[in-house]
Amino acid sequence: MSDPDRVLPRQVVRAVPFTFRRRIAWGDSDTGRIVYTGRFLDFVMDAADAWWQVLTGHDWHRMTVEHGHGLPAVHVDMDFTRVIEPGEELDCVVTVVRLGTSSFSLAVSGETANGQCFTATLVQAYMNTARRKAVPLPEHLRKLVEDYQQACRTATLPA
Amino acid sequence: MSDPDRVLPRQVVRAVPFTFRRRIAWGDSDTGRIVYTGRFLDFVMDAADAWWQVLTGHDWHRMTVEHGHGLPAVHVDMDFTRVIEPGEELDCVVTVVRLGTSSFSLAVSGETANGQCFTATLVQAYMNTARRKAVPLPEHLRKLVEDYQQACRTATLPA
Amino acid sequence: MSDPDRVLPRQVVRAVPFTFRRRIAWGDSDTGRIVYTGRFLDFVMDAADAWWQVLTGHDWHRMTVEHGHGLPAVHVDMDFTRVIEPGEELDCVVTVVRLGTSSFSLAVSGETANGQCFTATLVQAYMNTARRKAVPLPEHLRKLVEDYQQACRTATLPA
Amino acid sequence: MSDPDRVLPRQVVRAVPFTFRRRIAWGDSDTGRIVYTGRFLDFVMDAADAWWQVLTGHDWHRMTVEHGHGLPAVHVDMDFTRVIEPGEELDCVVTVVRLGTSSFSLAVSGETANGQCFTATLVQAYMNTARRKAVPLPEHLRKLVEDYQQACRTATLPA
Repeated sequence: MSDPDRVLPRQVVRAVPFTFRRRIAWGDSDTGRIVYTGRFLDFVMDAADAWWQVLTGHDWHRMTVEHGHGLPAVHVDMDFTRVIEPGEELDCVVTVVRLGTSSFSLAVSGETANGQCFTATLVQAYMNTARRKAVPLPEHLRKLVEDYQQACRTATLPA
Repeated sequence: MSDPDRVLPRQVVRAVPFTFRRRIAWGDSDTGRIVYTGRFLDFVMDAADAWWQVLTGHDWHRMTVEHGHGLPAVHVDMDFTRVIEPGEELDCVVTVVRLGTSSFSLAVSGETANGQCFTATLVQAYMNTARRKAVPLPEHLRKLVEDYQQACRTATLPA
Repeated sequence: MSDPDRVLPRQVVRAVPFTFRRRIAWGDSDTGRIVYTGRFLDFVMDAADAWWQVLTGHDWHRMTVEHGHGLPAVHVDMDFTRVIEPGEELDCVVTVVRLGTSSFSLAVSGETANGQCFTATLVQAYMNTARRKAVPLPEHLRKLVEDYQQACRTATLPA
Repeated sequence: MSDPDRVLPRQVVRAVPFTFRRRIAWGDSDTGRIVYTGRFLDFVMDAADAWWQVLTGHDWHRMTVEHGHGLPAVHVDMDFTRVIEPGEELDCVVTVVRLGTSSFSLAVSGETANGQCFTATLVQAYMNTARRKAVPLPEHLRKLVEDYQQACRTATLPA
């Protein structure tokens, strides 16, 4: 990571693979008394943004305001396998599944103490926001993503 | 209004007093099987923004991006009197209760076919967004707000 | 539809193919000054729920509370092709792409005056909510979905 | 608290006064590039629900589903004093300002490393959800709230 001394956000419970924890709130539920489907995309986006913040030192907000670059989503898909209830804690685990010239794909796995609840793929393009045009990922950011991919591979090697 | 020929957004069902209608969605509910409290502030904000858009020709987004001014909330209060269920349609009725030099207060009444569900007061300050500083409301905007106040008084005169 | 005399929700602008309109709100945007990605799944869910309400006479809420059945999502995918700004109106057009024994797939196309903004596929399973178990779609609901598919084909026939 | 050995949710950073931390997300912002006003009520609700969960052992969801009681809001007011940006962490500090027969008022203070950002008052009624009727708070819950009030007074005594 870019600054090992920086204090991690409280909700980051593991650096590799990056794991972001949230308490599921009353407001996340619906009449079905489980988490409303529409909230899952927020959970994915929040985890991806927190991952980028810890990886690069800039969350999407600062990257946009200070550097004029953004990471808009171009594709999302999600599969739902287990319901979640308010009061539970959800971990979103972020890994990189593809790194292209000006875009990359993240896998986000949603997990509670009861097991995996959903999987998602999020494809983002690196954009010059003023020109609303995809541009190649700069070398220093590409290097950080590649290092993270390598760290994840090492972390999950069988004993 | 600034342009009488402009087509109103579909959800505007009455110009005076300004009334904005929305269908309450599945995602607006919670485990209690009524509208989640946190959504009501969104309903108030949406109605206030739509009112400003129709009144002045610019919604808050355009006002911010094109003119560098904003209307951040400085105070909100809400009283809840009747529950709402998904599938119902909610009308938010917007009136002006106070017009100051650089701020004004709106009253928003939430109503369904079953009666009034909530009342809210929203106090907003007119800001120069770059300087994050309150500035006096320009004369042409003040005039539009005053005309709207007058139109509301006329519209609700007893027969 | 189950009751031709019933008044349609205001936001339904066309019955076939079903088209649900919403004004994009200030709160739907993010620092990028376009609609936040996470909101698009809400837009898809809202349109699918409104479609079901108009088609069957019961929105998901009433189906859950009164009949003990639900339509949880099992899969969603979305492709984003054009940005949307607050103040614009978005039409979500709902069609049926697959009708299985106990599940079906909807296509939702998001369109503004500027053209298509996103496409989504939403796969839902028909569930007994108490048993949290998928069950076959009852014949009267299957018939309504098939009739809607037929109506959409007829409505889009070339001249 | 009802079970001192129970593991606290990760986002609870202090028990007395109860303090709930969240990372402000990209999706919480708006075109103004600060947190969207509508999100603050969610932050208040989340903190109040987490406080109740830790205090009583049951979050609002479990209280509703397992016991048939709820805590709907009857009044909310909020004052906004300082903007918050995505990437920051927000602490919501919950204290009890009034304890009535069948309702109570919470104060929620929103604070970042830069200082206080908002204050809110949330008034909730204790309800029998089936009858949608306010009922007196049971003695064991009243005792927990009173003990918490006392613990807060002790915790904030001057040295």
